[in-house]
Amino acid sequence: MNESAALRTDLYELTMLQGYWAHGRVEDWASFEITFRSVPEGGGYCVAAGIEEALGLCLETRFEPAQLDYLASLGLFRPAFLAYLGTLRFTGEVRAVAEGTVVFPHEPLLEVTAPLIEAQWFETQLLNCVNFQTLIATKASRIAEAARPGQVVDFGLRRAQGPNGGLWVARAAYLAGAAGTSNVEAGRAFGIPVYGTHAHSWVMSFASEEEAFAAYAATYPDDTVLLIDTYETLTRGLPAAIRVARKLRARGHRLAGIRLDSGDLAYLSKACRASLDENGFAEVKILASGDLDEYVIENLRAQGAAIDTFGIGTRLATAFGEPALGGVYKLVALRTGENWQPKIKLSSNPAKTTIPGRKQIWRWEAGGRYLGDALALVDEPAPLRMRHPDFDYKRTELPHGELKPLLEQRIVAGESTGRSRTLEEGRERARVELAALPTEHKRLVNPHTYRVGLSDNLSQLRRAMIEREGTDATSTREVN
Amino acid sequence: MNESAALRTDLYELTMLQGYWAHGRVEDWASFEITFRSVPEGGGYCVAAGIEEALGLCLETRFEPAQLDYLASLGLFRPAFLAYLGTLRFTGEVRAVAEGTVVFPHEPLLEVTAPLIEAQWFETQLLNCVNFQTLIATKASRIAEAARPGQVVDFGLRRAQGPNGGLWVARAAYLAGAAGTSNVEAGRAFGIPVYGTHAHSWVMSFASEEEAFAAYAATYPDDTVLLIDTYETLTRGLPAAIRVARKLRARGHRLAGIRLDSGDLAYLSKACRASLDENGFAEVKILASGDLDEYVIENLRAQGAAIDTFGIGTRLATAFGEPALGGVYKLVALRTGENWQPKIKLSSNPAKTTIPGRKQIWRWEAGGRYLGDALALVDEPAPLRMRHPDFDYKRTELPHGELKPLLEQRIVAGESTGRSRTLEEGRERARVELAALPTEHKRLVNPHTYRVGLSDNLSQLRRAMIEREGTDATSTREVN
Repeated sequence: MNESAALRTDLYELTMLQGYWAHGRVEDWASFEITFRSVPEGGGYCVAAGIEEALGLCLETRFEPAQLDYLASLGLFRPAFLAYLGTLRFTGEVRAVAEGTVVFPHEPLLEVTAPLIEAQWFETQLLNCVNFQTLIATKASRIAEAARPGQVVDFGLRRAQGPNGGLWVARAAYLAGAAGTSNVEAGRAFGIPVYGTHAHSWVMSFASEEEAFAAYAATYPDDTVLLIDTYETLTRGLPAAIRVARKLRARGHRLAGIRLDSGDLAYLSKACRASLDENGFAEVKILASGDLDEYVIENLRAQGAAIDTFGIGTRLATAFGEPALGGVYKLVALRTGENWQPKIKLSSNPAKTTIPGRKQIWRWEAGGRYLGDALALVDEPAPLRMRHPDFDYKRTELPHGELKPLLEQRIVAGESTGRSRTLEEGRERARVELAALPTEHKRLVNPHTYRVGLSDNLSQLRRAMIEREGTDATSTREVN
Repeated sequence: MNESAALRTDLYELTMLQGYWAHGRVEDWASFEITFRSVPEGGGYCVAAGIEEALGLCLETRFEPAQLDYLASLGLFRPAFLAYLGTLRFTGEVRAVAEGTVVFPHEPLLEVTAPLIEAQWFETQLLNCVNFQTLIATKASRIAEAARPGQVVDFGLRRAQGPNGGLWVARAAYLAGAAGTSNVEAGRAFGIPVYGTHAHSWVMSFASEEEAFAAYAATYPDDTVLLIDTYETLTRGLPAAIRVARKLRARGHRLAGIRLDSGDLAYLSKACRASLDENGFAEVKILASGDLDEYVIENLRAQGAAIDTFGIGTRLATAFGEPALGGVYKLVALRTGENWQPKIKLSSNPAKTTIPGRKQIWRWEAGGRYLGDALALVDEPAPLRMRHPDFDYKRTELPHGELKPLLEQRIVAGESTGRSRTLEEGRERARVELAALPTEHKRLVNPHTYRVGLSDNLSQLRRAMIEREGTDATSTREVN
């Protein structure tokens, strides 16, 4: 698809756009924010990603004539409205956290404030990119954390959800701490280091395993990682690899590594490490792959597995344990005529009742550790106290002058406020953020809940709106 | 990415290509096949998809100069090899099952027989598209089966794994029985019917719910589906929808439907149906959405839920229950010099030991029901007996003249043998196939295993190769 992303959306966005247009609401403004309600796999945090792509979508998306012709063919849209769509440009404001920021339930990752029609237009495509990339960055950070000091490489393209899925997986994984990817397209598109070894088919296509190893080493004398499990790892593959390593050394090169792709990786890696060391090849690295994820890696490390690099395929590329982040795009404020009004969506499930109004996230850091985040209204100063979102009698005093705002203006009046952030900047941000996030929030099992509260003003606004609009919400039989 | 798919691959494919090229193996031929070992979510079958895209990749992929420049920058590839890559075209043969065919573990969905270098080149990208689309088509068929006679619409773009993921989800879902999609880009790209309602934000942006409903109905007098759960479904949303339905009827139109997106869908749908019927609106359909999948739908139907259309988002678009199909691309035959040799990959896990040789799948159908599939060598006639792949003393006699071959030649000598199959053809094929597959294989819980066996010749070949090459395979400590 070599087209603009204008149709990368749900039909209802476009029917709503025509509805707003037909009802004379082109001058109304709205503010929507992307938030999520829970962290996948019961985790303690997410790593924000997809922000730079989202900004690009806002800045660049246009309806092309052929796209408008298709819409006309549906019999739902009036010619005058389609002509209007053809002129549509984003003229609003976008505020967002930086890619790589650790974020938590209830927090706005990205806020769009724009004419109602423009803001609604982008709902689906912004959710699509922020949900997916944040999901993968979060998964990758968990895997990289478990593997440390070992390194992690994305091997997932063949099982990724579409080619484009594979591409953004590689980027999000690198952002959140992976060392690189096997995906060559991602290497070229994003400048990510690319890694590779060889397949079982390479070995099977030669008369013997050792001949296959020798041939590979002859072609890549300084970049050879040998896959040693095609026939039998310890009695055939490893001895053949060591003989090839000797020949490489005799010619002034060195074997970079061996790879294990099956079997008991804890047992095999330790046996391989011992044999390599005994034979004088302590510098040869061990790479392992095969249905790995953060849980398996943690277990392997607990057993003392001797693995330097983990190649992660399916379980990273699809975020296998929970393959979606449930981010939503909720209306938080509306301006009809001159007045901005905060908006709330009630639910009988308190966690689904939204937090009204435009906001800033204020992060409390002390001694290099993140202690909590306070959500405040966008036009109030850094708060000195925060309250629990649902139990507002639970409050925490905040120190004066030590809170950092996380949402930055990235687009104003439809124009970028500065240059795009690079992937390397996002990666560095994620590294710093994950180091500052206390370990108890990074645990895989039952992580401690990070404190996210509301300023007094925001808490009062929310409570007042629930009181005013919400009598039905508690009497309904709806339970989820 | 407006580029050829040549770099949509793992680095090791390209390093192997150079290795083969450097070792004078440009004349060797190989045959690889895509198979999977198990059906996701413990299901009884898969629906093959991604075949047409895979064929297009083989026919069209070329290395472009800018892609070769990138490869040169990696310092791994020799200039003469990169010049060779620039000339590379697929000149081989592809055989494949038709899209929409029900397929089972061990069966080749697609076979590539080509110069070794060309066949290896396509591994990653073919797996990427066949794995993902078959995964989603399979999931969609399960959901559509559970919903019947209700219909299913894909609502998943906002949670799909990337924009391209969402696009192919819509296609695979439609292929396997969904009625359409909310994804406008997919509607345009593939001619799939598009569906939509409106969002909660539409309701929240008006002064009252009824005003919002009336405005939507005024714009779409014959295409209005009203989302009635923004505030309180039964006491506010439903009565307002009925009042709007009355006004539409008075003007000669009719309300198409109402949508429920939260709450107890069984209870609410029955209450809405009763109220609509009592008020004379038996023709108004009920659409439900919200974390639905085949299990939830089966449960809703068991409770007598009155739902006509199911909008399925996250759980379809990501195949949430098991978000990857583990398809592999395995070498089954190799020609060096003049002689083709079957190839086998052994494993201490019998299910991972491959089935050697080029094959045909012969499907046994009787009385409109599929009874089993026999894998035979490509050059033998329809077999009269088949044996269990792992326990070869278990055998089944097959009737003469009633077996149909499933693998068709789609590309020969690098050229398509005919036109592409349309999505509608695949959809019709899936409909016929799923009707012929006995119910016991379609059960969601503990489906009966469909019989897939090997012809006597293939069984003997496999056993002989395991005997000859496999002494280590049973003595190894590797257990998975």
